[in-house]
Amino acid sequence: MTIEFARRPHSHIPAEPGKPYFIDKGMGDRAHLFTDLVTVYAGGPQTENSFNFFTVEGPRGDIIPAHSHPNTYEVFYVTQGAVRLFVEDLEGEQQEKLLTSGDFGFVPKNCPHAYRIERHHSQVVGVAAGPGGTFERFFETLGTATEELGLPRQPYVPAPQKFATVPQQYDVTFLPGHQWRTQS
Amino acid sequence: MTIEFARRPHSHIPAEPGKPYFIDKGMGDRAHLFTDLVTVYAGGPQTENSFNFFTVEGPRGDIIPAHSHPNTYEVFYVTQGAVRLFVEDLEGEQQEKLLTSGDFGFVPKNCPHAYRIERHHSQVVGVAAGPGGTFERFFETLGTATEELGLPRQPYVPAPQKFATVPQQYDVTFLPGHQWRTQS
Repeated sequence: MTIEFARRPHSHIPAEPGKPYFIDKGMGDRAHLFTDLVTVYAGGPQTENSFNFFTVEGPRGDIIPAHSHPNTYEVFYVTQGAVRLFVEDLEGEQQEKLLTSGDFGFVPKNCPHAYRIERHHSQVVGVAAGPGGTFERFFETLGTATEELGLPRQPYVPAPQKFATVPQQYDVTFLPGHQWRTQS
Repeated sequence: MTIEFARRPHSHIPAEPGKPYFIDKGMGDRAHLFTDLVTVYAGGPQTENSFNFFTVEGPRGDIIPAHSHPNTYEVFYVTQGAVRLFVEDLEGEQQEKLLTSGDFGFVPKNCPHAYRIERHHSQVVGVAAGPGGTFERFFETLGTATEELGLPRQPYVPAPQKFATVPQQYDVTFLPGHQWRTQS
């Protein structure tokens, strides 16, 4: 995906690709979506659309809606707390696993998946990319860009009409009615 | 890069791409190179050559040799300890920065760079990929694959002839004589 997005006025990611840069902890491009904070440190414009790099932080909460990505492979690497990852393979076999600091989960394209943050102050490092590009701006487009540090003070609930257009632009297919038969 | 490599007999990365998987902390495909432990959790075969995901752990030590990657963008995300990253842009301007837990550094293709681990038990998460592919098997090819957990008990020094062939196969160009003018 090479969707145009407005560069943040205070972004620490250089406007010009090809420049080395450093970003202090937490100071990437931030977005709020529901209860979570997503921080983007690099994306398609920095890597010739090869990959991106972002973190997701959130409080203990509910399982997020099941979804899949037709063209995107996704890494979940937990650096803090505990996150339960649910994933279904292309044959319909389901697995779930509680990931804690240093544990890794991999979701190939087209595999339904979801997660549930099971401990406050959890953090996941994510990479989400594939041959079609990268989708790091999904979070600020469905959610909202923010200059704040930290989790949303109130959950940010997207306007309903956004769900009709934003997910497909960013290679996200929600799977309403999907059941996790593993769910404990 | 789509170099063939022998799959590890005990690898937790599924032989068949397209399968979801989980890997417990430290249990990815491990290699020793000099004083460091590199652990690969995902690579080109898992992502249609879009990206990889690995960690580098090491003791406090010397600066590694300056090098660049003609086709590879590289992420340094420190999760533990302290690592000083040195990088030069395409105009020859040099920067260095001490990264600690949660800090991020980005090195575009063709930019000379090096790092020095400045605290024992440091860990860096890396992604190294570009339009030419991924290069996660560099470490076990120049160094040595291991089933051990933890850092090398003795530094693994590659045979000199390996330096003549392995780096260029994995998009690594060493820059002998390169000077870091920033070096403190």
